[in-house]
Amino acid sequence: MLCSQVPAEVAQLAEHWIVDPGVKGSIPFFGIYMSLVEPRLSRGLRDLLPEDSLARQHMIDVVRGVYELYGFVPLTTPAIEYLDVLSGSGGQEIQQSIFTAQNPEKEQLGLRFDHTVPLARVISQYKELPKPFRRYAIGPVWRADKPGPGRFREFLQFDIDSVGVQSEMADTEIMCCVCDSLAALGVSNYQVRFSSRRVLNLVLAYASIPVERGVDVFRVIDKLDKIGPQKLRLELTEGYFDESGAGISGLGLTTDQVDRIEQFLAIKSPIQNELLTQLHQVLGSVSGADEEIGVLQKISHNLKLMGHGDEHVVIDLSIARGLAYYSGPVFEPHLPDAPQFGSVGGGGRYDDLVKRFLGESIPATGASIGIDRLFTALQFLNHIKTRKSTADVLVTTFDAQMKDDYIAMTNELRRAGIRTEMYLGGEKAGKQIKYADKIEIPIVLLYGSDEKSKGVVTIKDMSVGRARAKQITEGRDQWLQERPGQFEVPRGNLATAVRELLAKL
Amino acid sequence: MLCSQVPAEVAQLAEHWIVDPGVKGSIPFFGIYMSLVEPRLSRGLRDLLPEDSLARQHMIDVVRGVYELYGFVPLTTPAIEYLDVLSGSGGQEIQQSIFTAQNPEKEQLGLRFDHTVPLARVISQYKELPKPFRRYAIGPVWRADKPGPGRFREFLQFDIDSVGVQSEMADTEIMCCVCDSLAALGVSNYQVRFSSRRVLNLVLAYASIPVERGVDVFRVIDKLDKIGPQKLRLELTEGYFDESGAGISGLGLTTDQVDRIEQFLAIKSPIQNELLTQLHQVLGSVSGADEEIGVLQKISHNLKLMGHGDEHVVIDLSIARGLAYYSGPVFEPHLPDAPQFGSVGGGGRYDDLVKRFLGESIPATGASIGIDRLFTALQFLNHIKTRKSTADVLVTTFDAQMKDDYIAMTNELRRAGIRTEMYLGGEKAGKQIKYADKIEIPIVLLYGSDEKSKGVVTIKDMSVGRARAKQITEGRDQWLQERPGQFEVPRGNLATAVRELLAKL
Repeated sequence: MLCSQVPAEVAQLAEHWIVDPGVKGSIPFFGIYMSLVEPRLSRGLRDLLPEDSLARQHMIDVVRGVYELYGFVPLTTPAIEYLDVLSGSGGQEIQQSIFTAQNPEKEQLGLRFDHTVPLARVISQYKELPKPFRRYAIGPVWRADKPGPGRFREFLQFDIDSVGVQSEMADTEIMCCVCDSLAALGVSNYQVRFSSRRVLNLVLAYASIPVERGVDVFRVIDKLDKIGPQKLRLELTEGYFDESGAGISGLGLTTDQVDRIEQFLAIKSPIQNELLTQLHQVLGSVSGADEEIGVLQKISHNLKLMGHGDEHVVIDLSIARGLAYYSGPVFEPHLPDAPQFGSVGGGGRYDDLVKRFLGESIPATGASIGIDRLFTALQFLNHIKTRKSTADVLVTTFDAQMKDDYIAMTNELRRAGIRTEMYLGGEKAGKQIKYADKIEIPIVLLYGSDEKSKGVVTIKDMSVGRARAKQITEGRDQWLQERPGQFEVPRGNLATAVRELLAKL
Repeated sequence: MLCSQVPAEVAQLAEHWIVDPGVKGSIPFFGIYMSLVEPRLSRGLRDLLPEDSLARQHMIDVVRGVYELYGFVPLTTPAIEYLDVLSGSGGQEIQQSIFTAQNPEKEQLGLRFDHTVPLARVISQYKELPKPFRRYAIGPVWRADKPGPGRFREFLQFDIDSVGVQSEMADTEIMCCVCDSLAALGVSNYQVRFSSRRVLNLVLAYASIPVERGVDVFRVIDKLDKIGPQKLRLELTEGYFDESGAGISGLGLTTDQVDRIEQFLAIKSPIQNELLTQLHQVLGSVSGADEEIGVLQKISHNLKLMGHGDEHVVIDLSIARGLAYYSGPVFEPHLPDAPQFGSVGGGGRYDDLVKRFLGESIPATGASIGIDRLFTALQFLNHIKTRKSTADVLVTTFDAQMKDDYIAMTNELRRAGIRTEMYLGGEKAGKQIKYADKIEIPIVLLYGSDEKSKGVVTIKDMSVGRARAKQITEGRDQWLQERPGQFEVPRGNLATAVRELLAKL
């Protein structure tokens, strides 16, 4: 449509677009020339095409099933929060990565970077919520970090949290639920590594480090996996220069202090009970050690009762978790076969998160499964079963005279609960079959005037015919002579016959 | 925790927060005083607490089931798009309502306002996608409009679209799928109103209005429902002043032109065939009328074949749809019992939407169900069945000595696929039962030392005991004497007994 007058909508936008008609890529649009917009996404963002989208949806359904098996209930909060609600939680790195947003009222808004801060807001805002409040939340969160393998700027987190319970049973159950979710996804080799911020606090006392330096020390310890023991030591003492020549400032701890931290980090065992014994030997003299080590002990004991023993759970004293708000047990699920993806989730206790809203603490503990990171890792491990279609049947529509019949057949199958696509378009049968092959629809129906006069429908089992169907270029006639994997059924018996074939596939 | 030194994270944020310790609402936090943040949401945003969240999730599951029954496949795109990708689509009102976003690179970004523009981008970006491409998309979209009943600034849309097909079969199927979705949701009284932009174009010719004025004329016609026929006439001619005294400028059409538009809009009948006959009588002489009216006729015919006749579908010639990109058939589903919520979705053909990216058109048609608007309307009609819990069973945990038993029981039930919550917390049995009552868990298990020594578990059917349980304030002892709706089962037979009771509820 080429008009002589430019509609108001277009004129308003023309400033961005209008270019000289001579410029390559310009197109006439409502009578003015515009340059084409390049279809693209900003960095760290991505599309999930149907195959991946279906596979990810399956993961979500499975995890939701486990979360509901545990009796967690859903809570849905908006993506957009006031910036002051988001601020001051999660630590400096998180704060710098918030996507800001703006409404017409020019308020200071941001996109949530996790589901935990919105939960803290909800808990503070709705006093009528039952306690314990055990909720799950699923949805995208946004962090403008540097993208990497399995690291996106918009990614799906699937969280569970229990609010209002001090007992380590709550922590245990959360960890158990994460284990069960991974198992339900068919991941046989996973490892949940756990520790406790409060045990890390014991180390501060053990190494005579003032408690207020804890946040900085834990942040460095949390990097052990990434930077290794040598750089860890340097960063805890005088600092160092990294490969790029950038100076990493040190925390200025003494040699004796770092020795004690290293002594602590050297406590390792795949047997939880052994590790706990060693931990007692090293930290036993510190005030409060019995209690805090006892918490780890109880969690370990309870997890075993729930069927999750040393083969899937380890105590890893270097686990501190990046987020600033954790205050007790912390943990991370890992896939040992795909270590390059890091943890595929994480969680812990964060009793003080509502304090910014209410002025008092409420005990809370939870976990997040990073669905997108996990999905990427499982793809890497060839662990994701994919399918390109939802339809089990394609009704071909190659004879324009028989449209009403195709509609009736399609309708009949759908009413029988069989997922059915009717081919939209007037191409020849061969091309329609190729389409079914491309998007992996397992059953194709053919119904022409021949079939109609005989009162039958031709059913084509694509699993049989797939290899040969690919060779067909000459349309339906050649194909009809070969007829691989196909048979006729009475028209009146169509839904039953399709259902029987589906059951066999 | 009160520290003498302020951690870096906190210090950085202190500028927003730090207030005089004397100010009401200030709290000590890491040793500095901060004012409390008010837990709140920006206007037009809302939380869905578990009851609503569960009910909405159920709606989504049902609609997804119907979309997949039709063989649509999911596509997932990010919430954030480049602003130039979003711009120029959807019309001026939409453009002004885009939430802008910003990343660290300071790019011009915005939150999607629908799923159709991202689909057009995807179609243009991924040339390898099969055609026809029939996809569904679910997720929040953002429009900074004036909030109203069922109108939010972040709302869930659930779309289906067929790309690459010119045939009106594609339009019909989309409409049919929307009808089936509403029916599957248990909505017996719905009405899909449809028309065509191209029939509206005939009216322009009939009234001798230049085609380039069409966008403005359609925009006004689309308001008929809202402003009524008198104001419609004024807005098409000399304009008027509304109640607030604001001037609404007129389009300056002549009396004769408006008469002809009114003659067109007066064509009404609940019987589609009758309306089509009238339409032929009025517009038959206009060039192209046979073809365009023929499209409506085919859609009407096909819909009837698919089981959707005059009782649920009407041709409504005032339907134009607000969005600028529609180019063919357009339609809106309405709930006649809740007219104040307007349309609960909408759709149509938009063949030119990819033109901005590719410089050429690709036929496309689709629909969106406004899940949140529909949800609000169905809530208003008392049509939403709600439940507050996902758990079918609460394992009470009133005896601290028996924690391991409770864990084992809970575990056993979950492994048997029974959705089970274990009460987290050390309250007395009575309080735990009240909790189950509050969040509507139908079955409660009681297991104390008595039960253990007898080798039984007490099962309490809350549907029987609910009324009396509410009176209990004295804890477990009083409650045990009354024992409403409860019975004992052998401990070894627990899962089976619970499953049998659940089947009866």
